[in-house]
Amino acid sequence: MFESAELGHEVDKATWKKEQPILREDLLTAQFELLEKKAFPVVILIAGVDGAGKGETVNVLNAWMDPRLIESHALEAPSDEDQRHPPLWRFWRVLPPRGQIGILFGSWYTMPILDRVLRDVDGPKLDQAIDRINRFERMLVDEGVLLLKFWFHLSKKAQKKRLKKLEKDPKTRWRVTKQDWERFEHYDEFVDVCAHVLRRTNQGHAPWIVVEGRDERYRHLTVGKTILGALRRRLDLPEEAIAAPGVLPPAPVSDRNVIATLDLSMRLSEKDYERRLEKLQGRLNALSRDERFGRAGVVAVFEGNDAAGKGGAIRRVTAALDARHYRVHRIAAPSDEEQDHPYLWRFWRRVPPLGHFAIFDRSWYGRVLVERIEGFAAERDWNRGYGEINDFEAELSEHGLIVVKFWLAISREEQERRFQARQQTGYKRFKLTEEDWRNREQWDDYVRAVSDMVDRTSTEITPWCLVEAEDKLWARIRVLETLCERIEERLESL
Amino acid sequence: MFESAELGHEVDKATWKKEQPILREDLLTAQFELLEKKAFPVVILIAGVDGAGKGETVNVLNAWMDPRLIESHALEAPSDEDQRHPPLWRFWRVLPPRGQIGILFGSWYTMPILDRVLRDVDGPKLDQAIDRINRFERMLVDEGVLLLKFWFHLSKKAQKKRLKKLEKDPKTRWRVTKQDWERFEHYDEFVDVCAHVLRRTNQGHAPWIVVEGRDERYRHLTVGKTILGALRRRLDLPEEAIAAPGVLPPAPVSDRNVIATLDLSMRLSEKDYERRLEKLQGRLNALSRDERFGRAGVVAVFEGNDAAGKGGAIRRVTAALDARHYRVHRIAAPSDEEQDHPYLWRFWRRVPPLGHFAIFDRSWYGRVLVERIEGFAAERDWNRGYGEINDFEAELSEHGLIVVKFWLAISREEQERRFQARQQTGYKRFKLTEEDWRNREQWDDYVRAVSDMVDRTSTEITPWCLVEAEDKLWARIRVLETLCERIEERLESL
Repeated sequence: MFESAELGHEVDKATWKKEQPILREDLLTAQFELLEKKAFPVVILIAGVDGAGKGETVNVLNAWMDPRLIESHALEAPSDEDQRHPPLWRFWRVLPPRGQIGILFGSWYTMPILDRVLRDVDGPKLDQAIDRINRFERMLVDEGVLLLKFWFHLSKKAQKKRLKKLEKDPKTRWRVTKQDWERFEHYDEFVDVCAHVLRRTNQGHAPWIVVEGRDERYRHLTVGKTILGALRRRLDLPEEAIAAPGVLPPAPVSDRNVIATLDLSMRLSEKDYERRLEKLQGRLNALSRDERFGRAGVVAVFEGNDAAGKGGAIRRVTAALDARHYRVHRIAAPSDEEQDHPYLWRFWRRVPPLGHFAIFDRSWYGRVLVERIEGFAAERDWNRGYGEINDFEAELSEHGLIVVKFWLAISREEQERRFQARQQTGYKRFKLTEEDWRNREQWDDYVRAVSDMVDRTSTEITPWCLVEAEDKLWARIRVLETLCERIEERLESL
Repeated sequence: MFESAELGHEVDKATWKKEQPILREDLLTAQFELLEKKAFPVVILIAGVDGAGKGETVNVLNAWMDPRLIESHALEAPSDEDQRHPPLWRFWRVLPPRGQIGILFGSWYTMPILDRVLRDVDGPKLDQAIDRINRFERMLVDEGVLLLKFWFHLSKKAQKKRLKKLEKDPKTRWRVTKQDWERFEHYDEFVDVCAHVLRRTNQGHAPWIVVEGRDERYRHLTVGKTILGALRRRLDLPEEAIAAPGVLPPAPVSDRNVIATLDLSMRLSEKDYERRLEKLQGRLNALSRDERFGRAGVVAVFEGNDAAGKGGAIRRVTAALDARHYRVHRIAAPSDEEQDHPYLWRFWRRVPPLGHFAIFDRSWYGRVLVERIEGFAAERDWNRGYGEINDFEAELSEHGLIVVKFWLAISREEQERRFQARQQTGYKRFKLTEEDWRNREQWDDYVRAVSDMVDRTSTEITPWCLVEAEDKLWARIRVLETLCERIEERLESL
């Protein structure tokens, strides 16, 4: 992996003097074109051996490019806010929008590598992390991100020499920390682990570019030219030339599906309802105040047919909670900032800290429902959504959050009745739009999309709960009951 | 202040049963209207004596209203991220956009009051805080926020009784903390300080509504009705019926102004420039790594005529810095999320943590420059901008951030030359737009607006540095020099 980066590459002064100004102008041109077209986001990871000149090269890049269109983020120790969220959260926070460049020192690679080298984490666990990284990067690239991963390498001898040299000069002494020397002690182990990680995460759409760190001019030119090449290639690419289509969910050849087989005749009497509601709300309230809940948290997703009673069900949940501990997110059209980021960005923004509830009234499943049906997302995009969503929910779940997903189902006839009723009465008319009537016409498309969604995203860790919602009372009780059960199950394991 | 709130107000069950459903429906209607019109942001502060039922009433409000259109935030101890930013930063972070309601438990009042009662902060200091609060709230209201401030009161006897009762019931015991009893010990002092604060911050545009906390039904109805009344009043108000115009800056009656009196003949030879640049960049680099800089930070504003060389000057600054410690913000048109908040929101989002540089390429001064000249902001809005900006910068400055503001001035002739040159060469053509040519036609308007801006916002803590930028080299040195001096000055005081 690192062989070519221990050969003592050098660039002489004359070459540098000749090439640097041209490279610089070309980079600027590419950068302005990127911005003007709002073409795509660029993420540059800078990783590698300590003392290999990562900071210097980034400073040079910033000097070459327009610093207004580039942001560098040093992601060192996570803040307390970071720690209350899943590990990927802090990277999502600094993800650049389309047209901009983000440079990350320290990335999603840092912790898995250090955990393996310095802490007690075993090989299989590292490979799990690698797998997650690969899926995450695949998603970024599919979402249009240009991802460049640079690895700055130094041989053991060269690293020692370099650290000593930095330490000797009073001007650079501050850059060598005790930690650097500690890590140097583990050089061989470190390089072994890194070689493994690099090999397993080196993919066509996001390859590692290993750069020998010894010679400054060589390093700067290599990085600069690689970035320029990648930018130009993407900028010059015709829009259509992207990604081959995947395999679609099978077309239904039978009338049976998870929605059609629901028994919508389930009912609950007013009396039963009141009794059970009170009990369940008490139970939920107690769970939310359980000391262990501080190490958990809930992400509850409410999807369902229009007028299926999502709002009413949500209110029965929130009524049991302290207003300080939940937040309800109504998901409608994305804002323009959200549109300039990969689609999951707007949900990552809303991931709750541990100990809290986030309730989503519609959610990321819009990707495989409305966006699929209305054609807002291209086929290849919504089709990869299933896997991306599973990965996203796995991240939440592994961090301790309990992901509970409800589909509230009503019949076409019941929907018509509810629409009519809404039109008549007071504040409810606000809830009914032209769009609702339009959606109705696509009833069959929705049935199919929902059925595909359940098949592909109901997993062992985040199953769908299909709720027969023809009777509102029945539906609310089912929601509360499921929520309580899922929380209890998790708290018992803590 | 609290007399009326110790009278033992009560609402009987029958009244409650009759009024509650009507209030509820009216609130929902108002809330949907608010959302549909994206009318204005609503901020509800909940403050007052411990045990006076703040949490309960907020939960009831959430149950009454649509929880999807309302967010409650408990602002307790600041996180480490909060602490690295000015105190107001965390409130800006949770400010609702237009059409939404935000409920804040704990607010900008909490710390000043506790500091006075429990810590060693004296009266004049409290009054300073009060003054800042008044100015902040005035700005929010002027920006269209509907601000409702509720104070929940209990007499000393009632508080004691209430805390004991809560403690006795195992279901509510968790709500009484040691801190509550500690604060109870200071009841008299606490109420005295609060009365003072309430009196001084009780204003027509943002009055305090003092609510007796003893009786639940009374409390809920009072708060609910107040909110409904305020919402309806604002929703039914015709757009035009807002705020009387203020006093504009005087029209110029002489040709002399701060811009016209600049000596644009200042020049620097290439040789002098190189020598001084290197020295200044070294000095700035050393300052940025000074141990004391971790308790400071820089907010640098670059404004100037189009083509005055802002970008070039910024690059000479960033070249001296480590890329991990600065961020450059190019300020263009606001995003739609930004447009749904008070205009300073988008700058608060970008306030750097201590120890960092934030460099603004154009800034909040757009309010009194382009927005004034193009008529993007109404006269009454840009005219109050001067004071609001001074307050904003004072917040930054008091937190330790060094605010440095540059106006880069060139002559009209020089601008024409630079525009022509840009049109010819390579990547620079990206920098020239139709708008630039249009702006040129308003040269005189800009001179006047800049002169007013300097007169009104060059303060003792955040003075403007007017830079003669006809010669780029001269301008860059002047910028670097000023920046170094301002930082040194601050670090010496630390």
